[in-house]
Amino acid sequence: MMPRSVLSRCAPCMLRPLEAPFRYLFGPGPSNVPPRILAAGGRPIIGHMHSEMFGIMNDIKKGIQYAFQTSNNMTLAMSGSGHTAMECAVFNIVEPGESVLVAINGIWGERVAEIAERMGAKVHTLFKTPGGHFTNAEIEQALAKHKPVLFFLAHGESSSGLVHPVDGVGDICHKYNCLLLVDSVASLGAAPLLMDQQNIDILYTGSQKALNAPPGTAPISFSERACHKMFNRKTKPVSYLLDMTHLSNYWGNDGKPERKYHHTGPVSGFFALRESLAILAEMGLENSWSHHTEVAEYLWKGLEDLGLKLFIKDKDLRLPSVTTIAIPEGYDWKELLAYIMKHHQIEFTGGLGPSVGMVLRIGLMGYNCNKANAAMALAALEDALKQCRKSKA
Amino acid sequence: MMPRSVLSRCAPCMLRPLEAPFRYLFGPGPSNVPPRILAAGGRPIIGHMHSEMFGIMNDIKKGIQYAFQTSNNMTLAMSGSGHTAMECAVFNIVEPGESVLVAINGIWGERVAEIAERMGAKVHTLFKTPGGHFTNAEIEQALAKHKPVLFFLAHGESSSGLVHPVDGVGDICHKYNCLLLVDSVASLGAAPLLMDQQNIDILYTGSQKALNAPPGTAPISFSERACHKMFNRKTKPVSYLLDMTHLSNYWGNDGKPERKYHHTGPVSGFFALRESLAILAEMGLENSWSHHTEVAEYLWKGLEDLGLKLFIKDKDLRLPSVTTIAIPEGYDWKELLAYIMKHHQIEFTGGLGPSVGMVLRIGLMGYNCNKANAAMALAALEDALKQCRKSKA
Repeated sequence: MMPRSVLSRCAPCMLRPLEAPFRYLFGPGPSNVPPRILAAGGRPIIGHMHSEMFGIMNDIKKGIQYAFQTSNNMTLAMSGSGHTAMECAVFNIVEPGESVLVAINGIWGERVAEIAERMGAKVHTLFKTPGGHFTNAEIEQALAKHKPVLFFLAHGESSSGLVHPVDGVGDICHKYNCLLLVDSVASLGAAPLLMDQQNIDILYTGSQKALNAPPGTAPISFSERACHKMFNRKTKPVSYLLDMTHLSNYWGNDGKPERKYHHTGPVSGFFALRESLAILAEMGLENSWSHHTEVAEYLWKGLEDLGLKLFIKDKDLRLPSVTTIAIPEGYDWKELLAYIMKHHQIEFTGGLGPSVGMVLRIGLMGYNCNKANAAMALAALEDALKQCRKSKA
Repeated sequence: MMPRSVLSRCAPCMLRPLEAPFRYLFGPGPSNVPPRILAAGGRPIIGHMHSEMFGIMNDIKKGIQYAFQTSNNMTLAMSGSGHTAMECAVFNIVEPGESVLVAINGIWGERVAEIAERMGAKVHTLFKTPGGHFTNAEIEQALAKHKPVLFFLAHGESSSGLVHPVDGVGDICHKYNCLLLVDSVASLGAAPLLMDQQNIDILYTGSQKALNAPPGTAPISFSERACHKMFNRKTKPVSYLLDMTHLSNYWGNDGKPERKYHHTGPVSGFFALRESLAILAEMGLENSWSHHTEVAEYLWKGLEDLGLKLFIKDKDLRLPSVTTIAIPEGYDWKELLAYIMKHHQIEFTGGLGPSVGMVLRIGLMGYNCNKANAAMALAALEDALKQCRKSKA
């Protein structure tokens, strides 16, 4: 075949160089990626099926086991963002027609309910407005009533700034022959979570929060109980790409001698994820938890000194990685955010999903989590509060 | 809540630095990523919803429109590999119970058939062994018989090294009120393909082949006809993450003034993809096509001079980016590959899916595509053929 003539030239914008400004990413994520992780992600790549790549994936598995505090063999990273892990968990654990119970107290429960509904599950919900949380008694009552195969709870409800208590929930679930699925995208590394000790069956997180890697990979782990359910189902999961039968082989978790080609994993993303997990391992989880708490408390005090009200009243329920502030009276929240972005190159955000218009959100996660950044955030907010007050006209 | 004690320390492997060897990635992909693209992907990130990020995504859209030779508004990049694009196309276009026709002459058709089956489509197949292709008459006959809503064809069948003729196929599909879905993962930028002129309704590719970006993003485009079908369906697509209603908004393609949060896109991956599309725009598609052909012809002659047989006899049906060689008699193909990897740091691969044990594959794509690399590949193969002949014992 002879080369054909192209019919259209490329738009001139593509002949200009890539431009991206520097930003302080002090929202709920992605957070700034430190040079060490950028450098890891910028290394020349190797093949996704090379033995050295499998070695790096094995390291990642160890790093996730540590970060999650689990000895689960079925531990891996998804080739995608936290939503990929969310869909993977629901698609693999639940079969069409089975019941799922979803705790909704912000956007993440809404998303899981939507995902489960689309794949044909019977979806039941427990509901609170943003900022609310569920008692173990409420959870138990709903489990007894709906007899779900899976219960979803967001540990880090980043849309409301709430860290949900998890103690005892796994035991209650197991009493009702239900698996516990927990979202720790916004909380991992910032708030204590112990997968095995807390009897969590499926736990996932994202790369781009306290781990400070670029978005695009998502650690996930399945307990033996979860594996038993998902590898003894009658129907195939609806997604080939997210089928754990294949993913467990790709990650060397199925005990088979050979890993077969399934999809091409994000090699650079895995380099970066390994580096971010190494940094967490070097620092130590307990240090990371206490450091996030310390910086968050410094930020909370500073915000209260500015006369602002924290959205989550109970300190023990505040997510240390993402702080929510009730929108102060006399201000347009969009105007505050735009002012801070324009004059301080700092990203804060508004609410998300059901919390839009209720809160401002400040995230200081991992590499970004230090008092100097908290002070910078407070100064920017103080400036904006001076400049952006609405006229009373 | 007080910080808890961790129960397990991290495995020592995570306290060692990341190591990855240098490799010549002369297989069917991923290919080597040039420094310019690595640098783009290693830049400090910005938020996935910042206006500058939307600007970069708009550029990517223009770059894809050029690479695909389409003016389709519904053009974007998936947050995932080629399989993500494959699932996205099938999940959005097809509703459960509808008929799909899949041309299988290698692994990619097998994958699409599996994906379509899982989501509840009635799957019909056209079948050839690897290396075979379909005439337009065969395609028309099957369309008339099965009346599918979607027909899948791999333009670059990388498992067999075949570039499939596409001329006229779109017109035949439309005659039977069927949409044409084409996989150009292995062929884009290497072999002529003109989405609009060839009446292709859905076209996708991967980032990690002739575009030379790291794996993890996948350009895709939908014709107006495809949009009409997918935005007028009765049921929601089974995946929330891959729902084009949301993705089209995220990419600013739905005409709405505001882009809403759907998922967190791979910011670094998009930086790298923009750079790779910019390099293609600077070089020009026609130059890229003729350059791949020229280097491939040089490689083919060199392989024949070594006494090897090319798997695809007809030159016009050979994929310029991935060359398949019939496994020479008297050799163990795995031993050849291992020898070349060990002594020359070069990756070639064996077959994939149905072509395993039939072929060796050499890919010279984009940045890797030049005569010096072809000569290096030939020298390595010549050396291996000398060293790896099986004893006749």
